[in-house]
Amino acid sequence: MAQWELKGIAASEGLAIGRAVVMHEEAGPQGIAFIEVGQEEAELKRFAAAVARAADELELLRSRMASDGREQEAEIFEAHLMLLEDEELIGQAQESVRTERYTAESAMSDAAEKVATLLASLDDAYLKERAADIRDVSRRVLRALRGGSGAETAGIASGQNGAEKSILVAHDLTPSDTAQLDPASVAGFVTAIGGRTSHSAIIARSVGIPAIVGAGTALDEVKDGQLVIVDGKAGVVLVEPTDSELAQFSELQVEQAARRERLKAFLGLPTVSADGHRAELVANIGSVQDAQQARQQGAEGIGLFRTEFLYMGRPDLPTEEEQFAAYRAVAEVFGGEAPIVIRTMDIGGDKQLPSLQLEQEDNPFLGYRAIRISLDRPDLFKTQLRAILRASAYGNLKVMFPMIATLDEWRRAKGQLETCKQELAAEGVAYNERIEAGIMIEIPAAALLADRFALEVDFFSIGTNDLVQYTMAADRMNPKLGYLSDPLHPAVLRLIEMVIRAAHREKKWVGMCGEMAGQPVALPILLGMGLDEFSMSASAVLPARELISTLNRGQLADLADKVLELEDANAVREYVEQHVQVLRERE
Amino acid sequence: MAQWELKGIAASEGLAIGRAVVMHEEAGPQGIAFIEVGQEEAELKRFAAAVARAADELELLRSRMASDGREQEAEIFEAHLMLLEDEELIGQAQESVRTERYTAESAMSDAAEKVATLLASLDDAYLKERAADIRDVSRRVLRALRGGSGAETAGIASGQNGAEKSILVAHDLTPSDTAQLDPASVAGFVTAIGGRTSHSAIIARSVGIPAIVGAGTALDEVKDGQLVIVDGKAGVVLVEPTDSELAQFSELQVEQAARRERLKAFLGLPTVSADGHRAELVANIGSVQDAQQARQQGAEGIGLFRTEFLYMGRPDLPTEEEQFAAYRAVAEVFGGEAPIVIRTMDIGGDKQLPSLQLEQEDNPFLGYRAIRISLDRPDLFKTQLRAILRASAYGNLKVMFPMIATLDEWRRAKGQLETCKQELAAEGVAYNERIEAGIMIEIPAAALLADRFALEVDFFSIGTNDLVQYTMAADRMNPKLGYLSDPLHPAVLRLIEMVIRAAHREKKWVGMCGEMAGQPVALPILLGMGLDEFSMSASAVLPARELISTLNRGQLADLADKVLELEDANAVREYVEQHVQVLRERE
Repeated sequence: MAQWELKGIAASEGLAIGRAVVMHEEAGPQGIAFIEVGQEEAELKRFAAAVARAADELELLRSRMASDGREQEAEIFEAHLMLLEDEELIGQAQESVRTERYTAESAMSDAAEKVATLLASLDDAYLKERAADIRDVSRRVLRALRGGSGAETAGIASGQNGAEKSILVAHDLTPSDTAQLDPASVAGFVTAIGGRTSHSAIIARSVGIPAIVGAGTALDEVKDGQLVIVDGKAGVVLVEPTDSELAQFSELQVEQAARRERLKAFLGLPTVSADGHRAELVANIGSVQDAQQARQQGAEGIGLFRTEFLYMGRPDLPTEEEQFAAYRAVAEVFGGEAPIVIRTMDIGGDKQLPSLQLEQEDNPFLGYRAIRISLDRPDLFKTQLRAILRASAYGNLKVMFPMIATLDEWRRAKGQLETCKQELAAEGVAYNERIEAGIMIEIPAAALLADRFALEVDFFSIGTNDLVQYTMAADRMNPKLGYLSDPLHPAVLRLIEMVIRAAHREKKWVGMCGEMAGQPVALPILLGMGLDEFSMSASAVLPARELISTLNRGQLADLADKVLELEDANAVREYVEQHVQVLRERE
Repeated sequence: MAQWELKGIAASEGLAIGRAVVMHEEAGPQGIAFIEVGQEEAELKRFAAAVARAADELELLRSRMASDGREQEAEIFEAHLMLLEDEELIGQAQESVRTERYTAESAMSDAAEKVATLLASLDDAYLKERAADIRDVSRRVLRALRGGSGAETAGIASGQNGAEKSILVAHDLTPSDTAQLDPASVAGFVTAIGGRTSHSAIIARSVGIPAIVGAGTALDEVKDGQLVIVDGKAGVVLVEPTDSELAQFSELQVEQAARRERLKAFLGLPTVSADGHRAELVANIGSVQDAQQARQQGAEGIGLFRTEFLYMGRPDLPTEEEQFAAYRAVAEVFGGEAPIVIRTMDIGGDKQLPSLQLEQEDNPFLGYRAIRISLDRPDLFKTQLRAILRASAYGNLKVMFPMIATLDEWRRAKGQLETCKQELAAEGVAYNERIEAGIMIEIPAAALLADRFALEVDFFSIGTNDLVQYTMAADRMNPKLGYLSDPLHPAVLRLIEMVIRAAHREKKWVGMCGEMAGQPVALPILLGMGLDEFSMSASAVLPARELISTLNRGQLADLADKVLELEDANAVREYVEQHVQVLRERE
């Protein structure tokens, strides 16, 4: 057995091995130090320079994250920037320098500690999180005062010898720390405290670094340079593993490599079931880079371009030109007739936008978002529609409206599209007159009226993530309600079947762009129901193509009927695994 | 025309007339005053006494509101109490007395202003509201320091001559002010600022006082003693109305009185349609008092006893004895075979409970609430089930589980009920062995699987408020999404029809306890679909009985089929109004 085996909370999947790099806590508040009389103005200047430097760092981080489509991190740094501009926090620190002759360091940490303590004392999870943010920002200013930069974490972690990667070991990581980890040198991280929904865990998943949090204080015993294995799926940390553990680890790595090799054979092939039915496997993306990666990983096109990332992490709104350039670039990645479905922006809900000044809502997932905003803001909406239309001259673009609940919303959205077409025609600008327009089916009301929508739209794309959360009345981000967030629940399957049947009756095609579309156990059901297009994360495309090549679609229609009569998601899962041989073999 | 006519925001419906009582703003922070050296301890004692007095007042208010079932106000005062126990706020004030010799008044208002300013500066609607609460609490302490009590508002307003009621006129009202208004002397109120969702507006609706908010600063010109008419539905304030306006107002009042008289004829009668079909009209209640009122207003029983009010506004949990007493008392209000449907607690969502220490959630309406909590907390759940079972020996009680999404949840809840039955039987305690057990249908998943649930439950009760918000993915409290919160949307109607059909196939009865059940335009549809039980607010019972007596149920089945094929809620509304003569005549 390894020198130690620690169990923690599985925060980000994946296997990693590397040498421990132990991050030591920065010293906390150190008591107050004072400057000489007469030095106040000089100290205030020094302080202002440090604040400006911290702001520059944050701005850089924010824009880097935003341009990588890493919206959540971008938002975190946006919030930190706002704190740095907060008169209360910085003003209070300046005041202490001016009237009490605190050093800039003392003034900053004292002011931050006071505000953070107040917020933390109010017994409110939301405010506690802000307290953590305030302390993070304060540490950044303190580092700047010392002449260091916020990029120290990355520095430590990439300072290792080039051959071996590091496993970062820390009591806790701030969002700033985590976002700056360089996946090229850091193979994974482990922290003593934190939970699956802490900022560092969220960021680890988004960056794709295996991570374990909440491993407990036993972690403090780990020394720099020890060999560490992180199994981010099982939540297990092995410190100084034995030879047999190392061998097992290598075996797992080899298996994964072999599977990757096998899947490569499906690159560039069409997606065909064992009995010769074609299906379309496309990808969900948020940026041009994503599109390139999706193409490399075998996607036949784009089933969902989440355009909100163009809007996020910036103080203003993207212009028609900027958007046109992005949509055209995605079209050109694939070229020819590859379908590119562009969804108009889905801001609101868990994605906020400073430039829109949206009010905070009690239930943002049931709130003012997506098409509900677009229809209220024709300026915003038409800018986007014009950009999409112009790009449609360069590829097989389709436009899709999110969060449609009523026919009236669809007709008003379609009406704006028609207006934009007329404007462009009058201006003599090229666009595809016959561009397809469809809607997301992610609200139960739209699924229940799919027969009426099918008469008017060109296509549906079922967004299972939201559809499940509304159908089950369970926030999919709420860790207590995991058992309700399963798209295999028969109530959800009945809605999906209803939508596909309604669409096919009117000879319209139906796609799916929720996570379900890439799940092996869901594929046989969806294929059996006749789903036409499967849109998933790029990494799921080849495995799905391989699986479909083994399935006999003709035989799956009965299976699809049968699961609608089952009682719950587990019964569905078992039934499919029992009746689909290839899934059985994989177990 | 009246001397002035002001337009404001209609905050609480109803017509009111009275003499203006103008509330003047209390003076704001007054600069700092100091005590003599050596007086610190005496001043701290004086401060402590005032804080204790303010806490007593708040505790009294909280418990009064809680026992009246006025949960929202009770929660506001609960929050105020917590602020008074907040070490940050009160500790800071004490510190200023001790070390800077502030008077208690100066210390309190200075500390409150600092914390409130900080919170208000953070540009966050949630925090801004807390800032208002802090100022409200501070004012209460200041009043106590002056020797006054928090009940001053009520004092002003009831100091009028007995014959005439008052219309309170103020720049703004704090939650404390509003909750203490005495409806016996205050006919209504008007404020210059505020919106429909401000605390004072919410409370006005809950107390049933006509109110207009946001009437603007022109209101400042109103003088004490002027005659004022408030039309809380139209949002119009008439100051010194003309004779013809007064006549019009009287006419409206007379009309309303005549209608009340006409409805009295339906008291004590069964509910029968024009073609002789029986329906059951029952009431939604939150307390024993509500039950008494419901009986007086013609309800045939209780379709929804919201038991969460027993849990709210108190630091501990209600015992089995307390609950038993409440359920038995409600049963005895009606006596005999009158059905009394008791819903197990629906805490969570917008209703929080200090004793459960629930975490704050991002989307409470999609969160950990109701049966989801009960199934995790058998101690809590079984206490309630035992109390209900014991009370079932005293009347026709039925038990209903809220927020059921899956069959498994239903079976686990039913299992707990059976366990409690066995325990009581073993203890020799009386209960109704054949007590009916049913579920709320308020989550789309349950409606979509109603055919499966109908095999096992004794009844359904459709909760349209939640069902609409999940089906349309629109928070019903969100003012921006009013257009999506309409139960007449065909998607919702399709779900309701599906549920009724599934239940009747298994010979189970179906009720409805959402607001829809009492809406005149919905009644013909629901009657046509065959709904068995209509549960509504007590005041809606007689109007509904009158309406049903004019309807021909046999002819409404076609109407109910037809509306399922319409496009949207407006089309449904128009269709029903066109095809149901009595509704047409009422226009």
